[in-house]
Amino acid sequence: MAERRRWSEEYPRWFDWVLEAAGVYDWSHYPVKGMGVWLPYGYKIRRLVTELIRRLLDETGHEEILLPLLIPEHLMKREAEHIKGFEAEVYWVTRGGLHELDVKLALRPTSETVVTYMESFWLKSYKQLPAKYYQIVSIFRYETKATRPLIRLREVTTFKEAHTAHADFEDTERQVLEAIDVYKRFFDELGIPYIISRRPEWDKFAGAVYTIAFDTVMPDGKALQIGTVHNLGQNFTRAFDVKIQLPDETLDYIWQTSYGLSDRVIAAIISIHGDDRGLVLPPIVAPIQVVIVPIPAKSEEDERKLRDYIEGVAKELREKGIRVHVDWRQGVTPGYKFYDWELKGVPVRLEIGPRDVRNGTVVVARRDTLEKRTVKREEASETVLRLLDDISRSLRERAWRWFRSYVNRAETVEEARRILSEKRGIVEVPWCGREECGRKLEELTDAKVLGSPLQPPEWVRGARCPVCGAPAVTSLRLAKRY
Amino acid sequence: MAERRRWSEEYPRWFDWVLEAAGVYDWSHYPVKGMGVWLPYGYKIRRLVTELIRRLLDETGHEEILLPLLIPEHLMKREAEHIKGFEAEVYWVTRGGLHELDVKLALRPTSETVVTYMESFWLKSYKQLPAKYYQIVSIFRYETKATRPLIRLREVTTFKEAHTAHADFEDTERQVLEAIDVYKRFFDELGIPYIISRRPEWDKFAGAVYTIAFDTVMPDGKALQIGTVHNLGQNFTRAFDVKIQLPDETLDYIWQTSYGLSDRVIAAIISIHGDDRGLVLPPIVAPIQVVIVPIPAKSEEDERKLRDYIEGVAKELREKGIRVHVDWRQGVTPGYKFYDWELKGVPVRLEIGPRDVRNGTVVVARRDTLEKRTVKREEASETVLRLLDDISRSLRERAWRWFRSYVNRAETVEEARRILSEKRGIVEVPWCGREECGRKLEELTDAKVLGSPLQPPEWVRGARCPVCGAPAVTSLRLAKRY
Repeated sequence: MAERRRWSEEYPRWFDWVLEAAGVYDWSHYPVKGMGVWLPYGYKIRRLVTELIRRLLDETGHEEILLPLLIPEHLMKREAEHIKGFEAEVYWVTRGGLHELDVKLALRPTSETVVTYMESFWLKSYKQLPAKYYQIVSIFRYETKATRPLIRLREVTTFKEAHTAHADFEDTERQVLEAIDVYKRFFDELGIPYIISRRPEWDKFAGAVYTIAFDTVMPDGKALQIGTVHNLGQNFTRAFDVKIQLPDETLDYIWQTSYGLSDRVIAAIISIHGDDRGLVLPPIVAPIQVVIVPIPAKSEEDERKLRDYIEGVAKELREKGIRVHVDWRQGVTPGYKFYDWELKGVPVRLEIGPRDVRNGTVVVARRDTLEKRTVKREEASETVLRLLDDISRSLRERAWRWFRSYVNRAETVEEARRILSEKRGIVEVPWCGREECGRKLEELTDAKVLGSPLQPPEWVRGARCPVCGAPAVTSLRLAKRY
Repeated sequence: MAERRRWSEEYPRWFDWVLEAAGVYDWSHYPVKGMGVWLPYGYKIRRLVTELIRRLLDETGHEEILLPLLIPEHLMKREAEHIKGFEAEVYWVTRGGLHELDVKLALRPTSETVVTYMESFWLKSYKQLPAKYYQIVSIFRYETKATRPLIRLREVTTFKEAHTAHADFEDTERQVLEAIDVYKRFFDELGIPYIISRRPEWDKFAGAVYTIAFDTVMPDGKALQIGTVHNLGQNFTRAFDVKIQLPDETLDYIWQTSYGLSDRVIAAIISIHGDDRGLVLPPIVAPIQVVIVPIPAKSEEDERKLRDYIEGVAKELREKGIRVHVDWRQGVTPGYKFYDWELKGVPVRLEIGPRDVRNGTVVVARRDTLEKRTVKREEASETVLRLLDDISRSLRERAWRWFRSYVNRAETVEEARRILSEKRGIVEVPWCGREECGRKLEELTDAKVLGSPLQPPEWVRGARCPVCGAPAVTSLRLAKRY
């Protein structure tokens, strides 16, 4: 197991350490670079994250489906921009058993081509629209950059991709806003701060009309893309010749959007909320929300009383819908158990010993602030419920405060470069809107563009592009990016 | 969409028809043979099936994990028997982007090799045993036989594979029994009848010491393998050199079992319970357990009253934990809606019209027997709950009665052959235990061996092998198999 690392000062190594030490994801043993194993505890976190996004998508009328992994070459290559964007990173199956395949099969890097092809059979009339599908699957990208656990994988194991079909462009615009709203609620529930940018033309999804992205900042100050929403226009349906009948009985190509999330969401939860002791999980995705650690009694009589007392507390909490675990392990000290559950990020710990049985109390410790206090037994449930709420809110607020300190404005290239090299985070500069100046800014600051806000911000009025000096029409955000 | 077919007389075509007509699985459009799409309604059935097996496995201490899909050639080939069994049906990834890969990667046909390799890092001492893992994933087999939806796929999309590790052989034997017990409870909940056989030596899992299989019979009388349990002994751990420390501090290879279920479970649910009108879903896996079809009122006043009345009934049922859908679609007749929900196999239909509002009644129709009756409004919830129970039990009993009629004994080759060609199903004959006679029986009856019961049955005592005439030591089961 990797050596313990400090969150604040050694972030990338802290991340590798905590993933394995807390039993989340085994990254170091699998003999193919960029692929790992979800371990039992990590898998439970992953399940709670996927259940949350499923709930938000189901509530907004999205329907879950499951599409094939293998995409024949002729489908994969039909939309020209799309394959140009992906050809360097597609894995190809070329052999079946002992035979060479007649048609090469791509491992899905994403499923726009498959969805569009299937829509040609499913959708015939505007009456069936909008149609909103999603799936949660593995996708594969032959990454040539250095891989990172959950952040840059060759097998992305938790890829949520949504695909929607519409009768006109206006409805795709409405859908993009709905997708943004769903993602906002998703990240808010998880306490992950974000900034929403329209990616520049030179960094949009291959095949999209435009791309909106959610970015957050990791503890090392580098920006991480954690969600994208694409307006695909009719690009794919033209390539696949997929038309529907409109109200006036004419035929037109379907309009589409697609939007995705990945394992990076879980990387962000872990990285942003964690600390030197390990994970700090938001209660909504904590497999165990409350762990009870018994403080051993000296006599058998007291031990029996303690057991009854603890099981009573646990039962009461479970009846309130709280995920509770009582750690009855023998042969390890309470101190060892504290350490273990802190590493695993359990939001609330109850310590209960013979003295608590006598006094009718329980000791309540919260993982985020490490504060500890004693409360009356009869107030235990209420205290825990309030505490779980409070921890959720407080993690979110702390993360946003921290994040905001990492989003800064600059007026000159020099200032932008200085912030990006010293403090990192995201820097926003006035921009004339020309690609040439955007690319120049990337070069001069040694950073990457995230894009512009959805609406030009007030503060750029009267400001000038720091590269060409022309009046700014919007702002441009830059960051060192994962 | 395929033409409607009759369950009883045109089963294989009925199955293709119902999958698409009921919106379960799109099998006819994807351009790669043996791969299809789970549609929204089918996906919901699939989810309920996977939730059931997850619950049963979690309750018995199994832990869910997620292993990589891609297996490097050197892992895939390390256990000699295993790769011999699978080499004709493994898909290989040979290209990444525009490059030839240095190491070919197999798409998992199953994960024994990966699990064993990872266990070499995870498991060090007998104190960690037994360790019980499972995952639910897609597996890939380059089938050369004719493919069939959900039955013989090239992408098996719902493969539940469990993998366990033990300190000695006795514990693997205990685990095999636990696995059999879990599968029994699983199939019993689904109302799927089964027969449990020990597969003959010549048809065991590649790499196993022995294989136990669950088979059922499909409406055309052919047997379908729906679950397998393998005792792997030390075969894989020897090949991968995976040892643990025992209580006496010596080292020994770990002992293993593995067991699996697939999409075939869903094929069996659909095929065995269905009828000429379409699906008949057991309530436990019905996405909608009760559909309410409003019978339209003539006046606005009556329509408003009807709406309140129906929403009241729906709310009451939902509060009892029942999955309810009210079909408020406009522009289609109640008759059309009946047809539609019968096709989709919804267990209970309530019909509620203005007359019911006036009389304080609801009309209750059950999908399995198509019986209909009127009950008082205040008895609605109780009636529905009882009915759902009754439907579950009655589907199970009907299926078992039907299944038992398909399991027959024969004393001679001639009799076995006659039953297998006329009536099909499963035929059990006395057997001397020799492979030669078993294979001869397959040849003479033009059927395949399922194997022998776990214990030699009473009735073979004194009987003789119909091939060689030697005294029978057990029985052998034969069937036309999928």
